[in-house]
Amino acid sequence: MSRAKRIAVRRWEQPDLGKADSDSVAVEEPLEIRIRGRSITVTMRTPGHDAELATGFLLAESVISSRSDIIEIAPCQEGESALHGNVLNVFLAPNVSVELERFSRHVFSGSSCGLCGKAAIENIHTDHSPLEDTITVPAKLLAGLPHHLEPSQDTFTKTGGLHAAGLFNERGELLVCREDIGRHNAVDKVIGHAIHNDLDMSRCILTVSSRASFEIMQKALAARIPVVVAVSAPSSLAVEFANSSGQILTGFTRGNRMNIYAGADRVT
Amino acid sequence: MSRAKRIAVRRWEQPDLGKADSDSVAVEEPLEIRIRGRSITVTMRTPGHDAELATGFLLAESVISSRSDIIEIAPCQEGESALHGNVLNVFLAPNVSVELERFSRHVFSGSSCGLCGKAAIENIHTDHSPLEDTITVPAKLLAGLPHHLEPSQDTFTKTGGLHAAGLFNERGELLVCREDIGRHNAVDKVIGHAIHNDLDMSRCILTVSSRASFEIMQKALAARIPVVVAVSAPSSLAVEFANSSGQILTGFTRGNRMNIYAGADRVT
Repeated sequence: MSRAKRIAVRRWEQPDLGKADSDSVAVEEPLEIRIRGRSITVTMRTPGHDAELATGFLLAESVISSRSDIIEIAPCQEGESALHGNVLNVFLAPNVSVELERFSRHVFSGSSCGLCGKAAIENIHTDHSPLEDTITVPAKLLAGLPHHLEPSQDTFTKTGGLHAAGLFNERGELLVCREDIGRHNAVDKVIGHAIHNDLDMSRCILTVSSRASFEIMQKALAARIPVVVAVSAPSSLAVEFANSSGQILTGFTRGNRMNIYAGADRVT
Repeated sequence: MSRAKRIAVRRWEQPDLGKADSDSVAVEEPLEIRIRGRSITVTMRTPGHDAELATGFLLAESVISSRSDIIEIAPCQEGESALHGNVLNVFLAPNVSVELERFSRHVFSGSSCGLCGKAAIENIHTDHSPLEDTITVPAKLLAGLPHHLEPSQDTFTKTGGLHAAGLFNERGELLVCREDIGRHNAVDKVIGHAIHNDLDMSRCILTVSSRASFEIMQKALAARIPVVVAVSAPSSLAVEFANSSGQILTGFTRGNRMNIYAGADRVT
């Protein structure tokens, strides 16, 4: 299962007319996730660690809350789907109830208010309560994490086209790194890995090579991760979400400097 | 409708302990699009040009094929939704038929094969046929487009957190630039703008400040745009899609150099 693929390319550089060459690009393929025989989503992803992706996705969507909710995850063996390995069946424990309706579209049902960022945050908090009593971490440790992630970004080095997510413990040791063409997928894979390995994420730090959006913060909260370190900029709603969820959020995190957007009182 | 928002931040830089300051971040808010009274999607977007966003989205989803399919787009005036301006009603012409089912999830129904990149491409081609007889463009013109987009990226300059998309004519003149926290949204807004203004996109060039994914190429084809110029890397499926759709695709497009991934015979 390769995450990079070599293809033909014409390299153009002034004043040349360009020359034929080959280049590595990140692989992008659809993945369909099925629960109880029904397709709940199709995501465009980089193949590899698909079971982790499905697990992290189902946690963020509040379908599962722990590893024991999943009996087995296996590629579909029927028909031509089996040839490509792009259809995953997730077998849930019988006691897990699933509202399939919630996958028909994003629903903001948890608030009496109309549709706004505040309602979106409240809606997430009905399923995933804000954190309390979380960790304090040294600024210097946080600022250095993106640098520690780089050696694990194998496919990015080849293709320049992948996002990475990494989970670190509070001593700044990397527990797992995953890459994907979609930054949400990279986060889902990291969280799915932690669930499969029974890691306690409540004292962990999630580092993303990209920007921090509302959805990234939401996925971190669903996993009870108290700190998110982003290499690039956060959005307004990511900052509001982090503040109201008890999370630390840093952006433009570049070794010797960073901006602390939320939870600055817990950064020492 | 501001696309940037000033918030409190603690700036940390070695060897200082950090100081309180303020920073501009890109605004992220949900937008719900309704057709015939039913919600078809909620997307996280940067407010502004929402009608263009809805129009571009509906073209890519094959709900509309031209401006005349839309009678009016107006913010919902009922209840608290009206307060935030985050719910848009799209009033379609009576003759437009909509399969609401297709919004319940991504469906790859156009192919007899299982689920793979090839099936995904064939599925798009059933609604949007490949291009024929498209334009030829000078390499030098394409290579310079990202640079011409930069002066229009107002909010990026402030926040560092937005993607930009621009539509250029074949002389390299910028017709419209739009920014959004989501790169698909920026493309939808540009295409929506072109539809509202009856621009002929079949001789235009779409430039994106980001990577080129399958979905970006699909949106370009739905709008009949023959050339996509990306500042960053393409995915494997974006390249396959461009080749089978008659599109030119360049990546790592940086002024005096670029990689031509598809349609190199039409780049002079």
